[in-house]
Amino acid sequence: MDISERKIVDDLLLSYQEVGGINRIDSANLPSRPAIATLCEDLLQILFPGFLETEAIEAENLEKETAQLLSKIAIALEKEIKRSVRLLNEVNLKVKDPKDLALDFLSELPKIRGLLRTDVEAAYEGDPAAQSFEEIILAYPCLEAIAVQRMSHILYYFGIPLIPRMMTEWVHSKTGIDIHPGAKIGSHFFIDHGTGVVIGETCVIGSHVKLYHGVTLGARSFQKDNEGNPIKGIKRHPNVGDNVIIYPGATILGGETVIGARSTIGANAFIMNSINEDSLVALSEVEHEIKNKRNHKEADGNG
Amino acid sequence: MDISERKIVDDLLLSYQEVGGINRIDSANLPSRPAIATLCEDLLQILFPGFLETEAIEAENLEKETAQLLSKIAIALEKEIKRSVRLLNEVNLKVKDPKDLALDFLSELPKIRGLLRTDVEAAYEGDPAAQSFEEIILAYPCLEAIAVQRMSHILYYFGIPLIPRMMTEWVHSKTGIDIHPGAKIGSHFFIDHGTGVVIGETCVIGSHVKLYHGVTLGARSFQKDNEGNPIKGIKRHPNVGDNVIIYPGATILGGETVIGARSTIGANAFIMNSINEDSLVALSEVEHEIKNKRNHKEADGNG
Amino acid sequence: MDISERKIVDDLLLSYQEVGGINRIDSANLPSRPAIATLCEDLLQILFPGFLETEAIEAENLEKETAQLLSKIAIALEKEIKRSVRLLNEVNLKVKDPKDLALDFLSELPKIRGLLRTDVEAAYEGDPAAQSFEEIILAYPCLEAIAVQRMSHILYYFGIPLIPRMMTEWVHSKTGIDIHPGAKIGSHFFIDHGTGVVIGETCVIGSHVKLYHGVTLGARSFQKDNEGNPIKGIKRHPNVGDNVIIYPGATILGGETVIGARSTIGANAFIMNSINEDSLVALSEVEHEIKNKRNHKEADGNG
Repeated sequence: MDISERKIVDDLLLSYQEVGGINRIDSANLPSRPAIATLCEDLLQILFPGFLETEAIEAENLEKETAQLLSKIAIALEKEIKRSVRLLNEVNLKVKDPKDLALDFLSELPKIRGLLRTDVEAAYEGDPAAQSFEEIILAYPCLEAIAVQRMSHILYYFGIPLIPRMMTEWVHSKTGIDIHPGAKIGSHFFIDHGTGVVIGETCVIGSHVKLYHGVTLGARSFQKDNEGNPIKGIKRHPNVGDNVIIYPGATILGGETVIGARSTIGANAFIMNSINEDSLVALSEVEHEIKNKRNHKEADGNG
Repeated sequence: MDISERKIVDDLLLSYQEVGGINRIDSANLPSRPAIATLCEDLLQILFPGFLETEAIEAENLEKETAQLLSKIAIALEKEIKRSVRLLNEVNLKVKDPKDLALDFLSELPKIRGLLRTDVEAAYEGDPAAQSFEEIILAYPCLEAIAVQRMSHILYYFGIPLIPRMMTEWVHSKTGIDIHPGAKIGSHFFIDHGTGVVIGETCVIGSHVKLYHGVTLGARSFQKDNEGNPIKGIKRHPNVGDNVIIYPGATILGGETVIGARSTIGANAFIMNSINEDSLVALSEVEHEIKNKRNHKEADGNG
Repeated sequence: MDISERKIVDDLLLSYQEVGGINRIDSANLPSRPAIATLCEDLLQILFPGFLETEAIEAENLEKETAQLLSKIAIALEKEIKRSVRLLNEVNLKVKDPKDLALDFLSELPKIRGLLRTDVEAAYEGDPAAQSFEEIILAYPCLEAIAVQRMSHILYYFGIPLIPRMMTEWVHSKTGIDIHPGAKIGSHFFIDHGTGVVIGETCVIGSHVKLYHGVTLGARSFQKDNEGNPIKGIKRHPNVGDNVIIYPGATILGGETVIGARSTIGANAFIMNSINEDSLVALSEVEHEIKNKRNHKEADGNG
């Protein structure tokens, strides 16, 4: 190593000392991003057996393979939970033993499979382009996003830090769908296309709800405490009733906003107040200017 | 394995029996997602030789390396086609032999290279930030998205199930650009940035068309049959004429909507009716309220 | 290889000869996409030591591990710079030696760490859902996107072709956040959610700026030279002052557009003119039609 490289290393070491908070040296391990990624992949495999592997599973091997995969997941999850609960303060440390938490979580998987079956049905009924259940499981990003969120929601509910958000961020990176682990979502949930969807931490979504890409269920500007820090943990995001459809690019904001059951929200709508049940909300015939280019020079508007 | 884990495995096995449709046990293999991913990567390599490998290809090795890669692709594609055509019902089973289908597809690759060359030209002419053809192939997501869609469109046209959608979903995950394999797209096609673009199954797009990120060419609400299921296979998405430019966030819906040639659609426009040729469509001077904050308390509007 | 495959190979070889510009045969190597991906991962590891590995770094190993990783990065970066500068014409070839460029770049890393620390603070203060600095580094896509852009900006400033854009495109694919390496960005920068954000090459962004997903800081339609090619290298994108907040889906265009300090731009706003300091800009009570569905048949609007 020559002198210039040596100097850079020294400067970096100095920076590690001086600029705290963004390095983890000689401190407890945090949950590992590669480990959480593998965990998500293994969990999806146990939810949809035979779908995501290269070869189908033979019935005679099913019990053995399921037991092996479950053991692998239980060990990995316990390890990551141990790492994450170190971040809790002493009061919260009264949570259960990491191994018990891992098993409590895993025992919820059959129930989650039941919910995901309803999500697959909703996608098949909700998209004329869908040809089969198989296509939905193999080629619809929403299914992965919803499966991971439904699992992360259980860990979030257990009070486990970091891991739930790392799971939903893993699937956000793959799908462009960003659902916070805290959101409560009913059965038969379908998101078509999905890129750009954002669903906030305190949303409550009914059953048979369909969203398109680019829909935001977000917060209005949030309250700050006396020291100017945002107040955490209060209801900030909307509720959406049963059988609601929200078309692409619609933005719905605020913790007191409720979209009534059976309502339809049109594309690009912007809503900060509650909407009655059975409503149809659309941008009113938005005024577009239409000019003939031959009579005008080229106009602006670009990205 | 202790008793709690044993019970979870038993519950999962029971769930596999009871909640059908989302597992594939002891049944025919489906096309494999990892195999389709490798196939897409290999196909991109044969379309852009020397670009995506770590080392350039030497002329003397070109023939040998091309032949080897083509053989590898032909074998893998035949295997996945065999898996996918099992889903067809008996009438459709009259399709060709999987090996013939694979070779018919591969013989289209030179023609696709010709089209992609026009797409690279369109990107160079369409973006002032583009410095070279090399930059476009190495760093513009639209090129991958368009290359994969142009290939998947051929398999879609052959009537092969699942694989075309798995291919476009692979590239959607990488680029945020979601183009259905069914869409017909002319030469010199350019999408800048790309995240959030959605192009539906029955779109027909002319040549020299430029889109920006967040553009939707989608369906209006669709017809249902007497049993309440969506009617599949009808024209649901717009046509876009030659030399049209569509700016970011514009939403154009409906199977009867036609954007006339040489028209320009402004950012965030929302269109459900046909537009004449040579038109310039823009949100008319949208009314924005502008307040001075010093005279008002902070207002809302967040995500 | 049978006759049909042989013919496809011959047609491809012919296509490689005839359709130039999209193959690199027997020519100088270009920077390698897999190599740039590894470089980005290694650089993120040296910026956030102990965060992205599976195990934390022990203090006694820190110096050795930092030196090893830095050496690895220096060698890889020099190799890719050598490949990229071959594209420069003779005038620009007067740039420094690739090894010196690599070391000059690496010596900026401590300064970048200081900036990233301010970005982490901004995220913690800007999102009520953020529970800890650790969560931001492990699960907020903006941090990766900003870290990679801040590094690519230095290489862009050095005049190195291709590599800066390949770096930002690598992170665009992971996060949906597309920031051009040319953009100048102040301290304490936060992007929440991020999917669909586009920030153009000639943007200048102040400090303490917060953006939400789907925000575009883009160009208006650009000037062309006498031969009809876009004029490259002129100021095309907006400036954003200190302490500005821009809510989701807002589109701000044009090289002469300036958003004054301390202004707030509401969701879905569309701005092509400058905004005074301390302004609050919102779509004025957009007219939405609200109908009761029970009295009307289902209306349109879909994606």
